[in-house]
Amino acid sequence: MFFQTLDILGTIAFAISGVLVAMHKRMDPFGVLIIAFVTAVGGGTLRDIMVGVEPVSWMQNMTFVYVIIASTIFAVVFRNKLKHLRKSLFLFDTIGIGLYTVVGIETGLVAGLHPLICIALGTMTACFGGVTRDILCNEIPVIFRKEIYATACIVGGLTYFALREFLEDQNYLFIIAGLVVIVIRLIAVRFKISLPSLYKVEGEQED
Amino acid sequence: MFFQTLDILGTIAFAISGVLVAMHKRMDPFGVLIIAFVTAVGGGTLRDIMVGVEPVSWMQNMTFVYVIIASTIFAVVFRNKLKHLRKSLFLFDTIGIGLYTVVGIETGLVAGLHPLICIALGTMTACFGGVTRDILCNEIPVIFRKEIYATACIVGGLTYFALREFLEDQNYLFIIAGLVVIVIRLIAVRFKISLPSLYKVEGEQED
Amino acid sequence: MFFQTLDILGTIAFAISGVLVAMHKRMDPFGVLIIAFVTAVGGGTLRDIMVGVEPVSWMQNMTFVYVIIASTIFAVVFRNKLKHLRKSLFLFDTIGIGLYTVVGIETGLVAGLHPLICIALGTMTACFGGVTRDILCNEIPVIFRKEIYATACIVGGLTYFALREFLEDQNYLFIIAGLVVIVIRLIAVRFKISLPSLYKVEGEQED
Repeated sequence: MFFQTLDILGTIAFAISGVLVAMHKRMDPFGVLIIAFVTAVGGGTLRDIMVGVEPVSWMQNMTFVYVIIASTIFAVVFRNKLKHLRKSLFLFDTIGIGLYTVVGIETGLVAGLHPLICIALGTMTACFGGVTRDILCNEIPVIFRKEIYATACIVGGLTYFALREFLEDQNYLFIIAGLVVIVIRLIAVRFKISLPSLYKVEGEQED
Repeated sequence: MFFQTLDILGTIAFAISGVLVAMHKRMDPFGVLIIAFVTAVGGGTLRDIMVGVEPVSWMQNMTFVYVIIASTIFAVVFRNKLKHLRKSLFLFDTIGIGLYTVVGIETGLVAGLHPLICIALGTMTACFGGVTRDILCNEIPVIFRKEIYATACIVGGLTYFALREFLEDQNYLFIIAGLVVIVIRLIAVRFKISLPSLYKVEGEQED
Repeated sequence: MFFQTLDILGTIAFAISGVLVAMHKRMDPFGVLIIAFVTAVGGGTLRDIMVGVEPVSWMQNMTFVYVIIASTIFAVVFRNKLKHLRKSLFLFDTIGIGLYTVVGIETGLVAGLHPLICIALGTMTACFGGVTRDILCNEIPVIFRKEIYATACIVGGLTYFALREFLEDQNYLFIIAGLVVIVIRLIAVRFKISLPSLYKVEGEQED
């Protein structure tokens, strides 16, 4: 119950982020709906087919479809309230990766997978929808940019398994891990923090 | 039987569309075959893995493989008859999305999925092969362009479920829905009809 | 046993190729790890979900995860020894496609699929990781370039099934088929051999 709530909140956040990017690209209404859809279900679809949950979960639960359609209509109608498009997009996308990281970890745990695999699954669930959105909208995909993105998901996942030793209540664990992802990304972008790159091989030429 | 015929006709149409794009890019013979293959089976592969039909259908039925190889040889041999490449490409691609929309809906019905999910499945089956073809050939993917593309598939799908109340014979329903997709796209491109975009948020800056 | 060794060697080769491309793009350490991961498991993931091996094999065997992490650390530490980045990349990528072609064919055989399907599966297993690596790193994907790439995998696959009539020991068959892929690509790139393109349709205009 609690867990499905997180999944639906993530769906709303990603659907809205999809609407914002698609409207920015002046897509027609069906195009906007399709991008909202792909952004919201992309990560979960990849997760489900890799684990073997088929038909994939959003196909078996109409709640997701209705939530995406409603979020799309909401975001279109109130687009003038979302004045600063880039800031709104950043916020909804960040909430989305926080929630979906946790949802992906949970799916891995239910399938009895190793913690490292669960973290990988959480990171993929969180990142794949946004990456697909950006590729379809011809934007530079979020993970190409200099910002911390997938790294926040990985750290959130590590936090989950580190705290599991001390905390019994899984719901708290989920909330903390999701918040870690969101806070890391917010702080990183706000203060322009990024990890150093591994330097280019010395003496290498652009041969 | 009737249904498999639609699937094979769609395979032929998409394989030829793949050959046309790949030859236009001056690919070598194996490259042309691979693009024909990916275009023809891409949509069905996505559909099958999302629903859980595995190994995916074209892997279990050699008819598809032989049809793709034959279509490729045919299209290469008669390439001078397909004089106006862009027009031929447009036609075969349009026939392909019409047929595959219907095939995707049928797969959803067999899996007992909700009508809205069936429409989504039909649209994905129809669009994914062409999108992958364009990405691999470094073309602007069909759904980025200002034309009506996925929208035609969605309307075709809605037509199918709207008419199901009045028409008993599923074969007629399939034919009508497929024709709706094809006719909408033909008319839209012929008369340069496109849906209006949802306007950019007022006062927004390219910040 | 022998077969798993090939799979792990392919994983190492592709992980290192991913590290080289990602470092060249000045990614941060987590970015480098993610690209190494995606390159190494991309092909196998596509293969497994198409055949229906789920959860996909690398999720059920931590060896792959540890091998990828170790290869990444190794490649980062010894990056100065891999002086000529492009040459190293080419070599590891080529070893990777040779090994993964064979691994893909084996998966197809175990699933009881037709030889042509096994060859297609081998080619996809070999090519998909590198293509994804290049798309995520914003490079021109290997199969767009004028070089022989997927063609080498197809010829290696054909060799496997041609020799199966004469050779009993499957391990030798695997080694020969993998070497055929590697040698064809090495020779093709060394001597700048490429297949001729199918000529553009006569009289066609860039309409």
